[in-house]
Amino acid sequence: AMAGPGWARAVRGLLLDVSGVLYDSGADGGVPIAGSAEAVRRIKASGLKLQLCTNETQATRENFVRKLRALGFDVSVAEVTAPAPAACRLLKERGLRPHLLVHDDLVPEFAEIDKTNPNCVVLGDAAENFTYANLNEAFRLLIGMEKPVLISLGKGRYYKETDGLKLDVGAYMKALEYACDVQAEVVGKPAKRFFESALAELGVPPEQAIMIGDDIVSDVGGAQQCGMRALQVRTGKYRPCDENHPEVKPDAYVNNLAEAVDIILQQ
Amino acid sequence: AMAGPGWARAVRGLLLDVSGVLYDSGADGGVPIAGSAEAVRRIKASGLKLQLCTNETQATRENFVRKLRALGFDVSVAEVTAPAPAACRLLKERGLRPHLLVHDDLVPEFAEIDKTNPNCVVLGDAAENFTYANLNEAFRLLIGMEKPVLISLGKGRYYKETDGLKLDVGAYMKALEYACDVQAEVVGKPAKRFFESALAELGVPPEQAIMIGDDIVSDVGGAQQCGMRALQVRTGKYRPCDENHPEVKPDAYVNNLAEAVDIILQQ
Repeated sequence: AMAGPGWARAVRGLLLDVSGVLYDSGADGGVPIAGSAEAVRRIKASGLKLQLCTNETQATRENFVRKLRALGFDVSVAEVTAPAPAACRLLKERGLRPHLLVHDDLVPEFAEIDKTNPNCVVLGDAAENFTYANLNEAFRLLIGMEKPVLISLGKGRYYKETDGLKLDVGAYMKALEYACDVQAEVVGKPAKRFFESALAELGVPPEQAIMIGDDIVSDVGGAQQCGMRALQVRTGKYRPCDENHPEVKPDAYVNNLAEAVDIILQQ
Repeated sequence: AMAGPGWARAVRGLLLDVSGVLYDSGADGGVPIAGSAEAVRRIKASGLKLQLCTNETQATRENFVRKLRALGFDVSVAEVTAPAPAACRLLKERGLRPHLLVHDDLVPEFAEIDKTNPNCVVLGDAAENFTYANLNEAFRLLIGMEKPVLISLGKGRYYKETDGLKLDVGAYMKALEYACDVQAEVVGKPAKRFFESALAELGVPPEQAIMIGDDIVSDVGGAQQCGMRALQVRTGKYRPCDENHPEVKPDAYVNNLAEAVDIILQQ
Protein backbone atom coordinates (compact mmCIF):
# COMPACT_ATOMS: atom_id res chain seq x y z
CA ALA A 1 0.00 0.00 0.00
CA MET A 2 1.04 3.61 -0.65
CA ALA A 3 2.07 5.75 2.32
CA GLY A 4 -0.98 7.89 3.11
CA PRO A 5 -1.99 10.35 5.80
CA GLY A 6 -1.91 9.17 9.41
CA TRP A 7 -5.62 9.65 9.93
CA ALA A 8 -6.39 6.96 7.33
CA ARG A 9 -4.37 4.15 8.95
CA ALA A 10 -5.64 1.14 10.90
CA VAL A 11 -9.30 1.73 10.03
CA ARG A 12 -11.64 -1.25 10.44
CA GLY A 13 -15.04 0.47 10.38
CA LEU A 14 -16.78 3.61 9.17
CA LEU A 15 -19.68 5.50 10.72
CA LEU A 16 -21.40 7.58 8.05
CA ASP A 17 -23.74 10.50 8.50
CA VAL A 18 -26.44 10.28 5.83
CA SER A 19 -28.03 13.64 4.91
CA GLY A 20 -25.30 15.78 3.34
CA VAL A 21 -22.93 12.80 2.96
CA LEU A 22 -24.88 10.20 0.97
CA TYR A 23 -27.56 12.53 -0.39
CA ASP A 24 -29.12 15.96 -0.09
CA SER A 25 -32.60 15.56 1.39
CA GLY A 26 -35.71 17.29 0.15
CA ALA A 27 -39.47 17.09 -0.16
CA ASP A 28 -38.87 15.63 -3.64
CA GLY A 29 -37.11 12.64 -2.06
CA GLY A 30 -33.65 14.13 -2.36
CA VAL A 31 -30.66 13.81 -4.69
CA PRO A 32 -27.64 11.49 -4.28
CA ILE A 33 -24.25 13.16 -3.84
CA ALA A 34 -21.99 12.24 -6.76
CA GLY A 35 -19.84 9.17 -6.07
CA SER A 36 -21.44 8.30 -2.72
CA ALA A 37 -23.41 5.22 -3.83
CA GLU A 38 -20.29 3.78 -5.47
CA ALA A 39 -18.28 4.65 -2.33
CA VAL A 40 -20.69 2.62 -0.15
CA ARG A 41 -20.30 -0.35 -2.50
CA ARG A 42 -16.49 -0.04 -2.37
CA ILE A 43 -16.49 0.09 1.46
CA LYS A 44 -18.50 -3.13 1.59
CA ALA A 45 -16.43 -4.88 -1.09
CA SER A 46 -13.24 -4.05 0.84
CA GLY A 47 -14.42 -5.86 3.98
CA LEU A 48 -14.52 -2.66 6.07
CA LYS A 49 -17.50 -2.47 8.41
CA LEU A 50 -20.10 0.23 7.87
CA GLN A 51 -22.88 1.73 9.96
CA LEU A 52 -25.08 4.74 9.16
CA CYS A 53 -25.23 7.09 12.14
CA THR A 54 -28.04 9.58 11.54
CA ASN A 55 -30.23 12.03 13.43
CA GLU A 56 -32.99 11.42 10.88
CA THR A 57 -36.38 11.49 12.62
CA GLN A 58 -38.79 12.15 9.76
CA ALA A 59 -39.34 8.47 8.96
CA THR A 60 -39.07 4.98 10.43
CA ARG A 61 -35.80 3.22 9.67
CA GLU A 62 -37.69 0.92 7.28
CA ASN A 63 -38.96 3.82 5.19
CA PHE A 64 -35.65 5.65 5.43
CA VAL A 65 -33.78 2.60 4.08
CA ARG A 66 -36.39 2.16 1.33
CA LYS A 67 -35.73 5.75 0.22
CA LEU A 68 -31.95 5.30 0.31
CA ARG A 69 -32.17 2.05 -1.69
CA ALA A 70 -34.31 3.84 -4.30
CA LEU A 71 -31.51 6.40 -4.59
CA GLY A 72 -29.01 3.59 -5.29
CA PHE A 73 -27.52 2.93 -1.83
CA ASP A 74 -26.93 -0.68 -0.84
CA VAL A 75 -27.92 -0.43 2.84
CA SER A 76 -30.14 -2.37 5.26
CA VAL A 77 -32.20 -1.51 8.36
CA ALA A 78 -29.66 -3.18 10.64
CA GLU A 79 -27.03 -0.79 9.30
CA VAL A 80 -28.91 2.30 10.57
CA THR A 81 -28.40 3.81 14.03
CA ALA A 82 -31.10 6.46 14.57
CA PRO A 83 -32.47 8.41 17.58
CA ALA A 84 -35.98 6.92 17.80
CA PRO A 85 -34.96 3.35 18.70
CA ALA A 86 -32.42 4.76 21.18
CA ALA A 87 -35.17 6.89 22.73
CA CYS A 88 -37.43 3.82 23.03
CA ARG A 89 -34.72 1.98 24.98
CA LEU A 90 -34.36 4.98 27.32
CA LEU A 91 -38.15 5.30 27.80
CA LYS A 92 -38.44 1.61 28.71
CA GLU A 93 -35.45 1.72 31.10
CA ARG A 94 -36.92 4.64 33.03
CA GLY A 95 -40.62 3.75 32.83
CA LEU A 96 -41.40 6.95 30.91
CA ARG A 97 -44.64 7.38 28.96
CA PRO A 98 -44.13 9.94 26.20
CA HIS A 99 -46.29 12.56 24.62
CA LEU A 100 -44.89 12.60 21.05
CA LEU A 101 -44.29 15.81 19.12
CA VAL A 102 -42.72 14.16 16.07
CA HIS A 103 -43.24 13.68 12.35
CA ASP A 104 -46.27 11.50 11.52
CA ASP A 105 -44.01 9.06 9.69
CA LEU A 106 -41.91 8.45 12.83
CA VAL A 107 -44.82 7.42 15.08
CA PRO A 108 -44.64 3.66 14.22
CA GLU A 109 -41.15 3.52 15.85
CA PHE A 110 -42.95 4.09 19.18
CA ALA A 111 -45.65 1.43 18.59
CA GLU A 112 -44.52 -0.72 21.55
CA ILE A 113 -44.37 2.20 24.01
CA ASP A 114 -47.14 3.01 26.50
CA LYS A 115 -48.24 6.57 25.72
CA THR A 116 -51.17 6.87 28.15
CA ASN A 117 -51.08 9.58 30.84
CA PRO A 118 -47.73 11.01 29.64
CA ASN A 119 -44.94 11.83 32.09
CA CYS A 120 -42.47 13.17 29.51
CA VAL A 121 -42.39 14.85 26.09
CA VAL A 122 -40.39 13.42 23.18
CA LEU A 123 -39.52 16.03 20.56
CA GLY A 124 -38.34 15.15 17.05
CA ASP A 125 -38.07 17.04 13.80
CA ALA A 126 -41.85 17.30 13.52
CA ALA A 127 -41.70 19.58 10.43
CA GLU A 128 -45.30 20.45 9.45
CA ASN A 129 -46.42 19.16 12.86
CA PHE A 130 -44.62 22.12 14.47
CA THR A 131 -47.86 24.08 14.68
CA TYR A 132 -48.78 26.75 17.25
CA ALA A 133 -51.41 24.40 18.72
CA ASN A 134 -49.05 21.41 18.96
CA LEU A 135 -46.28 23.47 20.55
CA ASN A 136 -48.71 24.90 23.13
CA GLU A 137 -49.98 21.40 23.87
CA ALA A 138 -46.46 20.01 24.47
CA PHE A 139 -45.66 23.07 26.60
CA ARG A 140 -48.78 22.71 28.78
CA LEU A 141 -48.07 19.03 29.40
CA LEU A 142 -44.48 19.78 30.40
CA ILE A 143 -45.24 22.74 32.67
CA GLY A 144 -47.96 20.69 34.35
CA MET A 145 -45.56 17.85 35.30
CA GLU A 146 -44.18 17.74 38.81
CA LYS A 147 -40.72 17.15 37.31
CA PRO A 148 -40.81 18.01 33.58
CA VAL A 149 -38.81 15.61 31.38
CA LEU A 150 -38.07 16.74 27.82
CA ILE A 151 -36.30 14.28 25.50
CA SER A 152 -35.06 15.72 22.22
CA LEU A 153 -34.13 13.57 19.22
CA GLY A 154 -31.03 15.58 18.31
CA LYS A 155 -30.35 19.27 18.81
CA GLY A 156 -29.49 20.48 15.32
CA ARG A 157 -29.94 24.19 14.58
CA TYR A 158 -31.05 23.84 10.98
CA TYR A 159 -30.59 21.74 7.87
CA LYS A 160 -30.65 22.23 4.15
CA GLU A 161 -33.30 20.72 1.94
CA THR A 162 -33.41 20.98 -1.82
CA ASP A 163 -35.88 23.92 -1.44
CA GLY A 164 -33.94 25.79 1.24
CA LEU A 165 -32.92 25.90 4.92
CA LYS A 166 -35.29 24.61 7.61
CA LEU A 167 -35.27 25.06 11.39
CA ASP A 168 -34.24 21.79 13.02
CA VAL A 169 -35.46 20.18 16.23
CA GLY A 170 -32.86 22.01 18.36
CA ALA A 171 -34.58 25.36 17.82
CA TYR A 172 -37.91 24.02 19.10
CA MET A 173 -36.08 22.27 21.95
CA LYS A 174 -34.69 25.66 23.03
CA ALA A 175 -38.17 27.22 22.93
CA LEU A 176 -39.59 24.56 25.27
CA GLU A 177 -36.50 24.59 27.50
CA TYR A 178 -36.86 28.35 28.00
CA ALA A 179 -40.62 28.32 28.54
CA CYS A 180 -40.46 25.51 31.13
CA ASP A 181 -37.04 26.32 32.62
CA VAL A 182 -35.83 22.75 31.99
CA GLN A 183 -32.82 21.19 30.30
CA ALA A 184 -33.65 18.68 27.55
CA GLU A 185 -31.98 15.28 27.42
CA VAL A 186 -30.62 14.82 23.90
CA VAL A 187 -30.84 11.38 22.27
CA GLY A 188 -28.90 11.34 18.99
CA LYS A 189 -25.68 12.96 17.82
CA PRO A 190 -23.65 14.53 19.47
CA ALA A 191 -24.59 12.58 22.65
CA LYS A 192 -21.75 10.26 23.67
CA ARG A 193 -24.13 7.43 24.54
CA PHE A 194 -25.57 7.53 21.00
CA PHE A 195 -22.14 7.23 19.34
CA GLU A 196 -21.33 4.36 21.71
CA SER A 197 -24.48 2.53 20.53
CA ALA A 198 -23.46 3.09 16.92
CA LEU A 199 -19.95 1.75 17.62
CA ALA A 200 -21.44 -1.31 19.36
CA GLU A 201 -23.57 -1.97 16.27
CA LEU A 202 -20.53 -1.39 14.04
CA GLY A 203 -18.60 -3.92 16.18
CA VAL A 204 -15.35 -1.93 16.10
CA PRO A 205 -13.60 -0.07 18.96
CA PRO A 206 -13.44 3.76 18.69
CA GLU A 207 -9.72 3.87 17.89
CA GLN A 208 -10.30 1.73 14.78
CA ALA A 209 -13.34 3.66 13.54
CA ILE A 210 -13.80 6.89 11.56
CA MET A 211 -16.90 9.09 11.55
CA ILE A 212 -17.60 10.96 8.31
CA GLY A 213 -20.12 13.80 8.40
CA ASP A 214 -21.02 17.30 7.23
CA ASP A 215 -21.83 18.77 10.67
CA ILE A 216 -18.77 20.13 12.44
CA VAL A 217 -20.37 19.93 15.91
CA SER A 218 -22.80 16.99 15.86
CA ASP A 219 -20.75 14.65 13.66
CA VAL A 220 -17.11 15.66 14.06
CA GLY A 221 -17.11 17.03 17.61
CA GLY A 222 -19.37 14.29 18.96
CA ALA A 223 -17.33 11.43 17.43
CA GLN A 224 -14.00 12.86 18.62
CA GLN A 225 -15.43 13.07 22.18
CA CYS A 226 -15.81 9.28 21.96
CA GLY A 227 -12.20 8.71 20.95
CA MET A 228 -12.88 8.25 17.23
CA ARG A 229 -11.26 10.01 14.33
CA ALA A 230 -13.65 12.21 12.36
CA LEU A 231 -13.65 13.77 8.89
CA GLN A 232 -15.74 16.66 7.65
CA VAL A 233 -16.94 16.43 4.05
CA ARG A 234 -17.29 19.59 1.98
CA THR A 235 -20.83 18.59 0.92
CA GLY A 236 -24.29 19.06 2.49
CA LYS A 237 -24.47 21.88 5.02
CA TYR A 238 -20.67 22.32 5.12
CA ARG A 239 -19.72 26.01 4.98
CA PRO A 240 -16.16 27.35 4.53
CA CYS A 241 -16.43 29.15 7.90
CA ASP A 242 -16.67 25.69 9.58
CA GLU A 243 -12.90 25.44 8.97
CA ASN A 244 -12.41 28.24 11.53
CA HIS A 245 -14.58 26.62 14.21
CA PRO A 246 -13.31 27.80 17.61
CA GLU A 247 -13.62 24.41 19.33
CA VAL A 248 -13.72 21.54 16.85
CA LYS A 249 -10.96 20.52 14.42
CA PRO A 250 -11.62 17.47 12.22
CA ASP A 251 -8.80 14.98 11.71
CA ALA A 252 -9.08 15.92 8.04
CA TYR A 253 -11.31 17.59 5.46
CA VAL A 254 -12.32 15.71 2.33
CA ASN A 255 -14.21 17.03 -0.66
CA ASN A 256 -16.78 14.23 -0.41
CA LEU A 257 -17.33 10.67 0.75
CA ALA A 258 -15.80 9.22 -2.43
CA GLU A 259 -12.50 11.00 -1.75
CA ALA A 260 -12.43 9.78 1.87
CA VAL A 261 -12.97 6.19 0.73
CA ASP A 262 -10.26 6.51 -1.94
CA ILE A 263 -7.72 7.57 0.66
CA ILE A 264 -8.74 4.96 3.25
CA LEU A 265 -8.68 2.12 0.72
CA GLN A 266 -5.19 3.09 -0.47
CA GLN A 267 -3.83 2.20 2.99
CA ALA B 1 -53.13 60.18 56.89
CA MET B 2 -52.69 56.90 58.76
CA ALA B 3 -49.16 55.55 59.22
CA GLY B 4 -48.75 52.89 56.54
CA PRO B 5 -45.93 50.75 55.20
CA GLY B 6 -42.79 52.52 53.98
CA TRP B 7 -43.15 51.31 50.40
CA ALA B 8 -46.42 53.27 50.03
CA ARG B 9 -45.00 56.73 50.94
CA ALA B 10 -44.18 59.66 48.67
CA VAL B 11 -45.83 58.10 45.60
CA ARG B 12 -46.74 60.50 42.78
CA GLY B 13 -47.31 58.08 39.91
CA LEU B 14 -48.19 54.45 39.17
CA LEU B 15 -47.09 52.25 36.29
CA LEU B 16 -49.56 49.41 35.85
CA ASP B 17 -49.11 46.16 34.00
CA VAL B 18 -52.38 45.31 32.24
CA SER B 19 -52.91 41.58 31.60
CA GLY B 20 -53.15 39.88 34.99
CA VAL B 21 -53.57 43.21 36.84
CA LEU B 22 -56.54 44.92 35.18
CA TYR B 23 -57.99 41.88 33.47
CA ASP B 24 -57.36 38.27 32.49
CA SER B 25 -56.95 38.11 28.71
CA GLY B 26 -58.55 35.54 26.45
CA ALA B 27 -59.89 34.83 22.99
CA ASP B 28 -63.32 35.78 24.38
CA GLY B 29 -62.06 39.34 25.06
CA GLY B 30 -61.08 38.63 28.63
CA VAL B 31 -62.55 39.21 32.09
CA PRO B 32 -61.90 42.19 34.42
CA ILE B 33 -60.20 41.41 37.73
CA ALA B 34 -62.57 42.31 40.59
CA GLY B 35 -62.04 45.85 41.89
CA SER B 36 -59.52 46.91 39.22
CA ALA B 37 -61.79 49.24 37.19
CA GLU B 38 -62.81 51.03 40.38
CA ALA B 39 -59.15 51.18 41.45
CA VAL B 40 -58.20 52.96 38.19
CA ARG B 41 -60.98 55.53 38.78
CA ARG B 42 -59.77 56.11 42.36
CA ILE B 43 -56.16 56.63 41.21
CA LYS B 44 -57.28 59.28 38.75
CA ALA B 45 -59.65 60.99 41.20
CA SER B 46 -56.80 61.22 43.74
CA GLY B 47 -54.57 63.21 41.39
CA LEU B 48 -51.92 60.48 41.17
CA LYS B 49 -50.47 60.01 37.70
CA LEU B 50 -51.06 56.72 35.90
CA GLN B 51 -49.49 55.02 32.89
CA LEU B 52 -50.15 51.50 31.58
CA CYS B 53 -46.86 49.70 30.91
CA THR B 54 -47.60 46.58 28.88
CA ASN B 55 -45.85 44.05 26.66
CA GLU B 56 -49.12 43.58 24.76
CA THR B 57 -48.37 43.01 21.05
CA GLN B 58 -51.54 41.34 19.78
CA ALA B 59 -53.27 44.63 18.89
CA THR B 60 -52.61 48.28 18.11
CA ARG B 61 -52.87 50.59 21.12
CA GLU B 62 -56.13 51.97 19.68
CA ASN B 63 -57.75 48.54 19.62
CA PHE B 64 -56.25 47.58 22.95
CA VAL B 65 -57.71 50.72 24.60
CA ARG B 66 -61.07 50.08 22.92
CA LYS B 67 -61.12 46.60 24.47
CA LEU B 68 -60.14 47.92 27.93
CA ARG B 69 -62.81 50.65 27.78
CA ALA B 70 -65.43 48.02 26.87
CA LEU B 71 -64.36 46.13 30.01
CA GLY B 72 -65.00 49.29 32.09
CA PHE B 73 -61.51 50.83 32.34
CA ASP B 74 -61.26 54.61 31.98
CA VAL B 75 -58.00 54.75 29.97
CA SER B 76 -56.76 56.52 26.82
CA VAL B 77 -54.21 55.74 24.09
CA ALA B 78 -51.77 58.32 25.51
CA GLU B 79 -51.77 56.39 28.79
CA VAL B 80 -50.40 53.19 27.13
CA THR B 81 -46.67 52.44 26.80
CA ALA B 82 -46.29 49.38 24.56
CA PRO B 83 -43.41 47.71 22.68
CA ALA B 84 -44.46 48.35 19.06
CA PRO B 85 -44.17 52.18 19.15
CA ALA B 86 -40.86 51.83 21.02
CA ALA B 87 -39.65 49.42 18.31
CA CYS B 88 -40.68 51.90 15.59
CA ARG B 89 -38.54 54.62 17.21
CA LEU B 90 -35.59 52.22 17.35
CA LEU B 91 -36.05 51.13 13.70
CA LYS B 92 -36.12 54.75 12.52
CA GLU B 93 -33.08 55.76 14.60
CA ARG B 94 -30.99 52.94 13.14
CA GLY B 95 -32.36 52.90 9.59
CA LEU B 96 -33.62 49.33 9.99
CA ARG B 97 -36.21 47.85 7.62
CA PRO B 98 -38.06 45.02 9.37
CA HIS B 99 -39.51 41.74 8.29
CA LEU B 100 -42.46 41.41 10.69
CA LEU B 101 -43.38 38.16 12.39
CA VAL B 102 -46.20 39.59 14.51
CA HIS B 103 -49.94 39.29 15.08
CA ASP B 104 -52.02 40.54 12.12
CA ASP B 105 -53.69 43.11 14.38
CA LEU B 106 -50.33 44.69 15.29
CA VAL B 107 -49.23 45.39 11.69
CA PRO B 108 -50.84 48.89 11.50
CA GLU B 109 -48.44 50.12 14.25
CA PHE B 110 -45.67 49.71 11.64
CA ALA B 111 -47.54 51.53 8.84
CA GLU B 112 -44.97 54.36 8.63
CA ILE B 113 -41.97 52.02 8.51
CA ASP B 114 -40.18 51.02 5.29
CA LYS B 115 -40.38 47.23 5.10
CA THR B 116 -38.80 46.69 1.65
CA ASN B 117 -35.64 44.57 1.38
CA PRO B 118 -35.54 43.76 5.13
CA ASN B 119 -32.33 44.04 7.15
CA CYS B 120 -33.78 42.88 10.47
CA VAL B 121 -36.57 40.70 11.88
CA VAL B 122 -39.11 42.05 14.41
CA LEU B 123 -40.72 39.29 16.47
CA GLY B 124 -43.90 39.81 18.48
CA ASP B 125 -46.44 37.50 20.05
CA ALA B 126 -47.64 36.33 16.65
CA ALA B 127 -49.97 33.66 18.12
CA GLU B 128 -51.65 31.84 15.18
CA ASN B 129 -49.04 33.40 12.88
CA PHE B 130 -46.37 31.25 14.57
CA THR B 131 -46.57 28.66 11.79
CA TYR B 132 -43.78 26.34 10.62
CA ALA B 133 -43.65 28.23 7.31
CA ASN B 134 -43.49 31.68 8.95
CA LEU B 135 -40.79 30.61 11.40
CA ASN B 136 -38.69 29.12 8.59
CA GLU B 137 -39.14 32.32 6.57
CA ALA B 138 -37.97 34.55 9.44
CA PHE B 139 -35.06 32.18 10.08
CA ARG B 140 -33.93 32.17 6.42
CA LEU B 141 -34.01 35.96 6.26
CA LEU B 142 -31.95 36.24 9.46
CA ILE B 143 -29.34 33.61 8.55
CA GLY B 144 -28.97 35.25 5.15
CA MET B 145 -28.09 38.68 6.62
CA GLU B 146 -24.47 39.72 6.80
CA LYS B 147 -25.10 40.81 10.40
CA PRO B 148 -28.41 39.32 11.62
CA VAL B 149 -30.51 41.71 13.75
CA LEU B 150 -33.39 40.19 15.72
CA ILE B 151 -35.67 42.55 17.67
CA SER B 152 -38.07 40.88 20.09
CA LEU B 153 -41.13 42.65 21.50
CA GLY B 154 -40.72 41.29 25.02
CA LYS B 155 -39.20 38.00 26.14
CA GLY B 156 -41.98 36.44 28.22
CA ARG B 157 -41.93 32.67 28.66
CA TYR B 158 -45.68 32.11 28.66
CA TYR B 159 -48.94 33.71 29.68
CA LYS B 160 -52.33 32.60 30.82
CA GLU B 161 -55.45 33.07 28.75
CA THR B 162 -58.94 32.15 29.83
CA ASP B 163 -58.56 28.84 27.92
CA GLY B 164 -55.10 27.93 29.23
CA LEU B 165 -51.37 28.69 29.11
CA LYS B 166 -49.77 29.83 25.83
CA LEU B 167 -46.12 30.05 24.79
CA ASP B 168 -45.08 33.71 24.71
CA VAL B 169 -42.76 35.51 22.29
CA GLY B 170 -39.66 34.71 24.40
CA ALA B 171 -39.86 31.02 23.52
CA TYR B 172 -39.83 31.77 19.78
CA MET B 173 -37.08 34.34 20.32
CA LYS B 174 -34.92 31.60 21.88
CA ALA B 175 -35.59 29.29 18.91
CA LEU B 176 -34.36 31.90 16.41
CA GLU B 177 -31.45 32.96 18.64
CA TYR B 178 -30.21 29.37 18.79
CA ALA B 179 -30.71 28.62 15.10
CA CYS B 180 -28.89 31.79 13.97
CA ASP B 181 -26.40 32.07 16.86
CA VAL B 182 -27.49 35.66 17.58
CA GLN B 183 -28.66 37.56 20.65
CA ALA B 184 -32.02 39.29 20.27
CA GLU B 185 -32.49 42.92 21.30
CA VAL B 186 -35.54 43.07 23.56
CA VAL B 187 -37.91 46.03 23.28
CA GLY B 188 -40.47 45.97 26.11
CA LYS B 189 -40.33 44.93 29.75
CA PRO B 190 -37.89 44.17 31.40
CA ALA B 191 -35.61 46.36 29.23
CA LYS B 192 -34.42 49.40 31.17
CA ARG B 193 -34.90 51.72 28.21
CA PHE B 194 -38.56 50.69 27.96
CA PHE B 195 -39.27 51.48 31.62
CA GLU B 196 -37.49 54.81 31.17
CA SER B 197 -39.85 55.67 28.28
CA ALA B 198 -42.84 54.75 30.45
CA LEU B 199 -41.54 56.94 33.29
CA ALA B 200 -41.00 59.83 30.86
CA GLU B 201 -44.60 59.46 29.69
CA LEU B 202 -45.74 59.24 33.31
CA GLY B 203 -43.82 62.44 34.05
CA VAL B 204 -42.58 61.26 37.45
CA PRO B 205 -39.01 60.35 38.53
CA PRO B 206 -38.36 56.68 39.41
CA GLU B 207 -38.09 57.27 43.16
CA GLN B 208 -41.65 58.68 43.21
CA ALA B 209 -43.16 55.92 41.06
CA ILE B 210 -44.41 52.39 41.77
CA MET B 211 -44.75 49.57 39.25
CA ILE B 212 -47.55 47.07 39.89
CA GLY B 213 -47.48 43.78 37.98
CA ASP B 214 -48.03 40.03 38.08
CA ASP B 215 -44.68 39.01 36.50
CA ILE B 216 -41.90 38.70 39.06
CA VAL B 217 -39.12 39.11 36.47
CA SER B 218 -40.48 41.39 33.72
CA ASP B 219 -42.53 43.72 35.93
CA VAL B 220 -40.95 43.64 39.38
CA GLY B 221 -37.32 42.92 38.52
CA GLY B 222 -37.29 45.28 35.54
CA ALA B 223 -38.82 48.23 37.44
CA GLN B 224 -36.50 47.81 40.42
CA GLN B 225 -33.50 47.88 38.03
CA CYS B 226 -34.67 51.39 37.11
CA GLY B 227 -34.78 52.60 40.71
CA MET B 228 -38.56 52.25 41.13
CA ARG B 229 -40.44 50.44 43.84
CA ALA B 230 -42.42 47.44 42.57
CA LEU B 231 -45.32 45.36 43.90
CA GLN B 232 -46.39 41.91 42.78
CA VAL B 233 -50.13 41.26 42.73
CA ARG B 234 -51.45 37.80 43.56
CA THR B 235 -53.59 37.77 40.39
CA GLY B 236 -52.94 36.81 36.76
CA LYS B 237 -49.99 34.48 36.28
CA TYR B 238 -48.78 34.92 39.88
CA ARG B 239 -47.81 31.58 41.43
CA PRO B 240 -46.99 31.01 45.13
CA CYS B 241 -43.49 29.81 44.16
CA ASP B 242 -42.79 33.34 42.85
CA GLU B 243 -42.41 34.34 46.51
CA ASN B 244 -39.25 32.20 46.67
CA HIS B 245 -37.67 33.71 43.54
CA PRO B 246 -33.87 33.44 43.90
CA GLU B 247 -33.11 36.91 42.51
CA VAL B 248 -36.12 39.23 42.68
CA LYS B 249 -37.90 40.42 45.85
CA PRO B 250 -40.83 42.84 45.38
CA ASP B 251 -41.12 45.79 47.78
CA ALA B 252 -44.43 44.19 48.80
CA TYR B 253 -47.06 41.66 47.77
CA VAL B 254 -50.70 42.70 47.48
CA ASN B 255 -53.69 40.50 46.82
CA ASN B 256 -54.76 42.63 43.86
CA LEU B 257 -54.64 46.14 42.41
CA ALA B 258 -57.53 47.35 44.57
CA GLU B 259 -55.63 46.50 47.75
CA ALA B 260 -52.50 48.29 46.51
CA VAL B 261 -54.52 51.42 45.74
CA ASP B 262 -56.23 51.28 49.16
CA ILE B 263 -52.88 51.28 50.93
CA ILE B 264 -51.31 53.98 48.74
CA LEU B 265 -54.31 56.30 49.08
CA GLN B 266 -54.29 55.96 52.88
CA GLN B 267 -50.90 57.71 52.96
